[in-house]
Amino acid sequence: MNENQSAKSQDLLPEPTLRRLPWYLAYVSMLRADNVEYVSSTRIADEVHVDASQIAKDLSFLNIKGKTRIGYEVAGLEDVLRRFLGFSSRHAALMAGVGSLGAALMQDSGLQRYGLNIVAGIDTNPALQGTSVGGIRVYSPARLAGLVRELGITIGILAVPVESAQAVADRLIEAGVKAIWNFTPTRLRIPADAQVVVTNTSIYSHLAVMYNRLGSIK
Amino acid sequence: MNENQSAKSQDLLPEPTLRRLPWYLAYVSMLRADNVEYVSSTRIADEVHVDASQIAKDLSFLNIKGKTRIGYEVAGLEDVLRRFLGFSSRHAALMAGVGSLGAALMQDSGLQRYGLNIVAGIDTNPALQGTSVGGIRVYSPARLAGLVRELGITIGILAVPVESAQAVADRLIEAGVKAIWNFTPTRLRIPADAQVVVTNTSIYSHLAVMYNRLGSIK
Repeated sequence: MNENQSAKSQDLLPEPTLRRLPWYLAYVSMLRADNVEYVSSTRIADEVHVDASQIAKDLSFLNIKGKTRIGYEVAGLEDVLRRFLGFSSRHAALMAGVGSLGAALMQDSGLQRYGLNIVAGIDTNPALQGTSVGGIRVYSPARLAGLVRELGITIGILAVPVESAQAVADRLIEAGVKAIWNFTPTRLRIPADAQVVVTNTSIYSHLAVMYNRLGSIK
Repeated sequence: MNENQSAKSQDLLPEPTLRRLPWYLAYVSMLRADNVEYVSSTRIADEVHVDASQIAKDLSFLNIKGKTRIGYEVAGLEDVLRRFLGFSSRHAALMAGVGSLGAALMQDSGLQRYGLNIVAGIDTNPALQGTSVGGIRVYSPARLAGLVRELGITIGILAVPVESAQAVADRLIEAGVKAIWNFTPTRLRIPADAQVVVTNTSIYSHLAVMYNRLGSIK
């Protein structure tokens, strides 16, 4: 299913490839921690349940080729994957909505390791403004445009209640963010002339799929 | 992309339908809060960017039909959607791995509202055992089987480091969980004879897709 919309969609890596690359990364990171030097695509295939030929094809997008009989050099492959996936860069992000889920994500240091640097939060609740969550300062939404400009924020994370999701997304786009990571179940409308990437991560709809499948095996 | 594996896959609602239903629910919940009584599939279509005919087809799986010219009754539609999606039931779950992400999810009260009741956590870190996170008690992994049995746990949430993901998944299955909600980027191997649902929510791979799309518009 297409979880992403983009204003400009030419020259993009296929999304299925992009979703598989982190699996390869997870596996080669483990191998590297175990001081393994080389890995074959067959061995990666066994581990991640993807065809060896598909793996070779996916990695060819990154200009990586394995050596005959030896395979891929583990440390090099890990570095290239991390860099290619954007996990080695820093991306400044703002959390819109410091409720339960927003605050939880601000406390997840894992996001940092994957290149997401949440530098500020905004919330309409005056009791939250001026406080810090996970070491990150929370501001009034009135400060939004200034924060985006001053802190070089490119990503807005949307974790507000459903009823304000569209309005807050509109304000994030006006303020100049280039991507919205949408954790709400709202389908966002993006102005046709806005070059903004939307990535939907509706963890609650994953729950619905799980419950349904669970019901069928009980 | 198929994010789910299931040992038994007949008689299942199509996954795309299952993923759209929460969008409809989000919208009709808003309408209900605004005391709107009826809604047409055309109006839902405008809001969630799905064809009106597709919406009618999706809702027909739930045996819901709109009335000519009036549309669907909002309150009834919300109730049926919530119940059908499993959000009105309580599903007892265990958090495996109370690190950064695991602890964050245990503090997200939103999951409760969607029927997920995390009743215990396990972690190998002795400093965490015996403490509570978000009001939920953390135990030693040695207690796993007993907890699953005594607390009627059906869902194991996997938020451990990549290198132990497969081993912990194996132990969850041995202990008798019926579903694994996998937050790690690991591709889990499930024994062919185990009737276990796996739902993958790799939020970090969504980040990779977002970064890639973002790079192409800068």
